[in-house]
Amino acid sequence: MKTSGKTNKSVYDRACNVLTGGVSRNTIFREPHPYYVATAKGSYITDIEGVQRIDFANNMASLIHGHSHPAIIEAVTDQLQRGTAFTMGTEAEVNFAELMIERSGTFERMRFVNSGTEAVMTMIKTSRVYTKKSKVAKAEGTYHGTYDYAEASQTSNPDNWGDIDKPNVNQVVEGTPQGALDDVVIFPFNDIERTLKILDQHAEEIACVLIDPVPHRVGLFPATNAFIEAIYNWTRKNNALMVFDEVVTYRVNYGGKQDSFTVKPDLTAMGKMIGGGFPIGALAGRSDIMEVLDPRGKILRHPHSGTFSANPISTTAGRVAMELFDEEAVLNLNALTNTAIHQIEEAIKIADVPMSITGAGSMFRLHLQASKPTCYREAFQTKEKKDLTNELLDYMFLEENIIMINTGACMFATSLTQKEVDRLSGALLNGFKLIKPNLDKLS
Amino acid sequence: MKTSGKTNKSVYDRACNVLTGGVSRNTIFREPHPYYVATAKGSYITDIEGVQRIDFANNMASLIHGHSHPAIIEAVTDQLQRGTAFTMGTEAEVNFAELMIERSGTFERMRFVNSGTEAVMTMIKTSRVYTKKSKVAKAEGTYHGTYDYAEASQTSNPDNWGDIDKPNVNQVVEGTPQGALDDVVIFPFNDIERTLKILDQHAEEIACVLIDPVPHRVGLFPATNAFIEAIYNWTRKNNALMVFDEVVTYRVNYGGKQDSFTVKPDLTAMGKMIGGGFPIGALAGRSDIMEVLDPRGKILRHPHSGTFSANPISTTAGRVAMELFDEEAVLNLNALTNTAIHQIEEAIKIADVPMSITGAGSMFRLHLQASKPTCYREAFQTKEKKDLTNELLDYMFLEENIIMINTGACMFATSLTQKEVDRLSGALLNGFKLIKPNLDKLS
Repeated sequence: MKTSGKTNKSVYDRACNVLTGGVSRNTIFREPHPYYVATAKGSYITDIEGVQRIDFANNMASLIHGHSHPAIIEAVTDQLQRGTAFTMGTEAEVNFAELMIERSGTFERMRFVNSGTEAVMTMIKTSRVYTKKSKVAKAEGTYHGTYDYAEASQTSNPDNWGDIDKPNVNQVVEGTPQGALDDVVIFPFNDIERTLKILDQHAEEIACVLIDPVPHRVGLFPATNAFIEAIYNWTRKNNALMVFDEVVTYRVNYGGKQDSFTVKPDLTAMGKMIGGGFPIGALAGRSDIMEVLDPRGKILRHPHSGTFSANPISTTAGRVAMELFDEEAVLNLNALTNTAIHQIEEAIKIADVPMSITGAGSMFRLHLQASKPTCYREAFQTKEKKDLTNELLDYMFLEENIIMINTGACMFATSLTQKEVDRLSGALLNGFKLIKPNLDKLS
Repeated sequence: MKTSGKTNKSVYDRACNVLTGGVSRNTIFREPHPYYVATAKGSYITDIEGVQRIDFANNMASLIHGHSHPAIIEAVTDQLQRGTAFTMGTEAEVNFAELMIERSGTFERMRFVNSGTEAVMTMIKTSRVYTKKSKVAKAEGTYHGTYDYAEASQTSNPDNWGDIDKPNVNQVVEGTPQGALDDVVIFPFNDIERTLKILDQHAEEIACVLIDPVPHRVGLFPATNAFIEAIYNWTRKNNALMVFDEVVTYRVNYGGKQDSFTVKPDLTAMGKMIGGGFPIGALAGRSDIMEVLDPRGKILRHPHSGTFSANPISTTAGRVAMELFDEEAVLNLNALTNTAIHQIEEAIKIADVPMSITGAGSMFRLHLQASKPTCYREAFQTKEKKDLTNELLDYMFLEENIIMINTGACMFATSLTQKEVDRLSGALLNGFKLIKPNLDKLS
């Protein structure tokens, strides 16, 4: 299918004259140029040159039903006729909030915002108001959006990460104020002993311990129940909150990854898939904490608005997407993902490459190492391994027409079937064979 | 028209069980309950009880063509069929960026984000990278979204604003880290002498001077050209950037309020109307500064993505909205707004109330004082005046079926005509007479 006379390169050349680096988000950048979508349906994306690819990235986990789901299109098309944004409320925000609160046991009250970044920022600010403390504790390597306090040490590397007993607080963006970094505490994910020792050193100042329960950038393996229990107990003793970033991981169980643990977060930030393909973020949790946002109070402790927050397009699309992602759909999707993991593990054996897979629910990530990483520092890729990952992913994208995330991860959608899974594992087997010679040299 | 059996109160009662304070954004809250939209077209909104009102708020200035504009609906409906979000690019982001860069002389490169809050945050972070400095200077009382550094002193009041020669840096949200407040410098808007003295005290540390050229919360009057020139010259001498928040004010001229000044900002943050009714934010400016965001650099100085940034729905709707808001449309809308201002000033005279109006372009704001305020402290409303403003706006909303912004401001849209302007000025005349006895007592 040829959809236009334009080429990906010609559009990128134009883009370079108007967008920094030719892209509006680094995610889509690839050498020598990004590719541009003409149309997408379910798990298939066709670019402007007419090449069709299978999508296992789903816009970084944000499309739980793939592209252009008919029920979402229908509901949004209907709302479009009635308006998209008002200085008044809509029933859509109430309907969606009711659905989400019914869905997760820890959600008593919520608020919608426009992105995961805004959700985490609002969660941190809410924690500060409630605890009257300033510091945020987070795990080394975790991504939580671009708020300074949430992003620190996300990109730590062997040259700057420091002693594992006291990981350095590193800026991600140059010029991050020292005052912001001073209000962040970094701990090693899933390492109970070290984490508690580090937290203890700042017990008087920590407002919240921020946890992504399956942190993609750390290696995409779940927090252990013992780790979450240890954090929870520490926060109970030290007037701090345990808050979860489930922007990505809410998909893992019907009520989020938090369903897997014996103790529960005080607050949860969400985003991505709960927008049904439209911009959204959300904060949910205990009503006594969320009360700091109440506009009916005599003093506004945490004034909070947002021009597009809870707009009826995002809340309508999100509600429909979440209704469709019911308990059965979650289980089916996780089972299909599990099948894919088994098939890929089989391919790893057949290709005889030193590789492994981690994951949870409908997500997994490949690692160019024989044993699964158990922490950020183990999962960290050297430049040589990053180059090999890129070689594999370029092969998948350009030769096999399969889209994965640039870390070597897949985020499944309900539009995928066994057919696409077979294509994925078969293509990866070819890819593994391709990189094997160079990979063997590194191992 | 009765659109459902539900009442605004019954929906709000449900909302109170799931959303903090029953709302997802404080903007829509009103005593005793908010109102919920059933449908909206052009400048008319019908609530779920079937009451139709004329909309002069336009979702806090974000709808430049009113509601459900047919050309926007058509373009979005078409894009909906082809997908809403991808881990790849779309030509929509390139088309829109080309349009915006052609539109404003200071835009050489840009990036899209999801909200005005994100745009200002990204602008501040970009300024820090470029200048290698940390502090943000901003005017007392200005609203720039919810990033800690951008929101400081937005709600300063006589009890905490301090000496005008050195206004206090006040938190807006309880528990804002002192480290963040220490990196903010507050100056009095349009006060050249005091501002330069204050800036000089932090010359070594200021990364950017952040300016809203017609700050709504300060009083909705424009920056003087002399003030902007003074700031510009100061930043040239002190390795700092002059950056504009035109999230609201981009509507004032064809290329933004910045078109009015003899000197231009280095960077501009946008949002609201440029999304055509969908969530958006944008950062634009000098290419040598924007380059810090380039993913092709050897070192990522400012890694920047965002799951929904530059999504093809927001960029398509935004492009169509901006194409329709051409030079002629801008002039016509400003002329209509000017007519409205004259008619309301006439009403003020007839009602013989001590009131005044400020504004620029397609925006204006009423003040319960005979002489126009010239600074935040003059425009600041005591509790008594706030109560009277609410009485006036409740009367307008409930009795006259006219929607204004809760400060007494109107943000016009091209869907308005002389007919609605006559309704507005006539209704306000009634409202002025209503509050006159109590207002006279205060003056």
